[in-house]
Amino acid sequence: MKNFIITAVIFLMCSSLSSVSAQNSDSIAIRRIYNDALSDSTSYSILRYLTTKIGGRLAGSPQSLKAIQWAEQLMRGMKLDTVFLQECKVRHWVRGEKEVARVISGKTSLNLHVCALGGSIGTGKNGITAGVIEIRDYDELKKLGKDKVAGKIVFINHPADPTFYNTFGSYGGTAGYRVRGAVQAAYYGAIAMIDRSATPVHDNNPHTGIQHYADTVKKIPALSISTNDADKLSLLLRSDPELHIFVRTTCEELPETVSYNVIGEIRGAIHPEEIIAFGGHIDSWELGQGAHDDGAGLIESIDILRLYRSLGIKPAHTIRAVAFIDEEMEQRGAKAYVAASLLPQDGMNKVVHIAAIEADRGGFTPWGFSIDASNEQLKKVQGWKNLLLPYGLYSLEKGGSGVDVGPLKSQKVPLFGLVVDPQRYFDYHHSATDTFDKVNIRELQLGTAAMAALVYLIDTYGL
Amino acid sequence: MKNFIITAVIFLMCSSLSSVSAQNSDSIAIRRIYNDALSDSTSYSILRYLTTKIGGRLAGSPQSLKAIQWAEQLMRGMKLDTVFLQECKVRHWVRGEKEVARVISGKTSLNLHVCALGGSIGTGKNGITAGVIEIRDYDELKKLGKDKVAGKIVFINHPADPTFYNTFGSYGGTAGYRVRGAVQAAYYGAIAMIDRSATPVHDNNPHTGIQHYADTVKKIPALSISTNDADKLSLLLRSDPELHIFVRTTCEELPETVSYNVIGEIRGAIHPEEIIAFGGHIDSWELGQGAHDDGAGLIESIDILRLYRSLGIKPAHTIRAVAFIDEEMEQRGAKAYVAASLLPQDGMNKVVHIAAIEADRGGFTPWGFSIDASNEQLKKVQGWKNLLLPYGLYSLEKGGSGVDVGPLKSQKVPLFGLVVDPQRYFDYHHSATDTFDKVNIRELQLGTAAMAALVYLIDTYGL
Repeated sequence: MKNFIITAVIFLMCSSLSSVSAQNSDSIAIRRIYNDALSDSTSYSILRYLTTKIGGRLAGSPQSLKAIQWAEQLMRGMKLDTVFLQECKVRHWVRGEKEVARVISGKTSLNLHVCALGGSIGTGKNGITAGVIEIRDYDELKKLGKDKVAGKIVFINHPADPTFYNTFGSYGGTAGYRVRGAVQAAYYGAIAMIDRSATPVHDNNPHTGIQHYADTVKKIPALSISTNDADKLSLLLRSDPELHIFVRTTCEELPETVSYNVIGEIRGAIHPEEIIAFGGHIDSWELGQGAHDDGAGLIESIDILRLYRSLGIKPAHTIRAVAFIDEEMEQRGAKAYVAASLLPQDGMNKVVHIAAIEADRGGFTPWGFSIDASNEQLKKVQGWKNLLLPYGLYSLEKGGSGVDVGPLKSQKVPLFGLVVDPQRYFDYHHSATDTFDKVNIRELQLGTAAMAALVYLIDTYGL
Repeated sequence: MKNFIITAVIFLMCSSLSSVSAQNSDSIAIRRIYNDALSDSTSYSILRYLTTKIGGRLAGSPQSLKAIQWAEQLMRGMKLDTVFLQECKVRHWVRGEKEVARVISGKTSLNLHVCALGGSIGTGKNGITAGVIEIRDYDELKKLGKDKVAGKIVFINHPADPTFYNTFGSYGGTAGYRVRGAVQAAYYGAIAMIDRSATPVHDNNPHTGIQHYADTVKKIPALSISTNDADKLSLLLRSDPELHIFVRTTCEELPETVSYNVIGEIRGAIHPEEIIAFGGHIDSWELGQGAHDDGAGLIESIDILRLYRSLGIKPAHTIRAVAFIDEEMEQRGAKAYVAASLLPQDGMNKVVHIAAIEADRGGFTPWGFSIDASNEQLKKVQGWKNLLLPYGLYSLEKGGSGVDVGPLKSQKVPLFGLVVDPQRYFDYHHSATDTFDKVNIRELQLGTAAMAALVYLIDTYGL
């Protein structure tokens, strides 16, 4: 018994020592990752080019194809093992001329800052004029009923709740009105829908975003109005409930067109057929430059490959950066990606994903990862906390990843979402202010480093 | 024995239940604090006034007195129990005319972006012209020695190390050259010192800050040069080591003058003589607007009192916001504060501080608190982690507080520093870019909330 105890103690000491030593070498490896990321400004320069030279790039647009071509060339210049495109069909919606919305109240007339919502039909060149019904939520719409709503423009004035610590919670409470507001309003006979922008800030910038129609309900023009003008319109309606609004949008849906995901890889030295994927989306709304959404996440992902090459790290598994197309409208890129994800590639009969990370919450200071995986996998990742905490990555909790890597869940792939400081994201999100100058170089570099550290740990220890 | 065990189990269950219930009510109280802070924009409006209407406000300046008067009026309007000023003498250094520095190399001449360092003497109206010796650190200076340095302008080109995760670490490695560079250079006979700005960013803005002379060494003009121009000058020196620089600064030290801390209190309902203090500094460098340094910390502190009144929380202990004067130069306000901190006040024989919190790291997203206290006190605060973590306050570690509350350590007062995201702070710090538009309203509101939550817990449970 005594010998057994001594043996057990020695065994425990050794395994504990070897675990300490592994922790040390991991800690050094992660320190090197951060040193490289924080010293290298490539990602910032690349993001500058994408956002200021190519600019906004909605799927289907010439700009999106330019961005795809640029991303392919960029990755081909990085001496990766594989760079390839993945084809898919995408919608081709165009905004048309600058949108107009004008309040007509007695003899006064006031222009409002509006934009068409993504996927909306236009009003026709002559525009439409109608009275306005303001509602705060669908309950109010229901109470008003068809009698009061028919023939009117429904103005959904549901402000973002500022008390959420995490602004994504607040966004969740408003985005639904943008996505389904036109269907709900049309159901009661409205002829157009204007939604208060889904943002906590008070300014003059309307925020766009996808909206969906239903087959069973008439399609009506759907717009977003800036928060300042939503407040203004609400006040005006109190003094003149009979005021009218003239709205004119010329957006339209062109025939579907071909587009592509762009993929770059460093091949795994031991398990080339096992893939750790990470990515962001290359498309963006076109009011701004798509800097935080999602130039940052895309460029951070590509920058992981640069960093691996720069440090000479040879991954055991294949590591892969993915530029997903069409996140903003239909996630056709994500669908094409999952459809191709098990197919033979380069002489390998079958490839499988062992993990996928999505970066699509802006290029802000990373806080950790949301983890969509089994409890065992979750615990394993949480076991790396001491290695990640020195870099502020304190949050390693269960949670959704993102819509681009999400479909891989059908293959039971453990999924991750890069969690970043969410306080400023919705200030810019989908609006003209989502521009390069809003991205801080260090925050962007830390995004690269955080994901590279996780990739390193998954590559070293599996999941 | 059995009865004892049952009793013990019941006792443990009850104490555990009562602890759960206390946690719940604390959790609700902290949720209310965050709801109020995130819904109220008073602090943002007040900061806008201080920074854009009063602007930069170095101790001793008319602007600083305007700010003090404004802060007093502001607090008097908040229906506090006590508002008072605390007098002290401060230096009165003035920058004078816009600084000039020009490279003269052969027939070419190039203007550099420079500013005088705080407390520096001027060059005299005619300026000075001399050759330049570039050094990276004091070892290089020592090796060059008096022969090579005498009569020259010493250019200290020590770049900030970007690899620190926490930029305060990087700042620690550069600020010393600013503070002591002139003394070191003068010791070897230099006639002026130009220091590379203590910032990780690459731009054209010189960053000022205090520099100190030594009684034993001749005073020479001390300047800061923008990082872009430091790089430029370094390159020019490689092609023309004989180039000269013309420098002209007219800064000077006027006679000391009277200034004030401003203090506002809500009196404790149970222990009025026991004080929980929190504050930031009201003075700032005058190149910018003193928005992050330290308008934000000051306004967050004052906003805690607004929040307590708004929620109708009656603290058991006296809670006190302090606007410290002269943090940037000599901390005369902090010295006056500690000197008066045990004196009788309003019929109370003696007051004592039970805690003091300093907010002076910019108005960014809070991460927690650095704690300068006994191990028992540290453990007690760390025991509140579950209450603070939902608001991102994950970092509750030993560490320094700040130079304004620091002197209270002599009374063994537990001290706290509000820890915030440090990535962007030194981009703006002490430069013309530290302006109101760099402060995000939510990040500012969260600063109020984080400190108010800590104040609430200290007030409820003591330390």
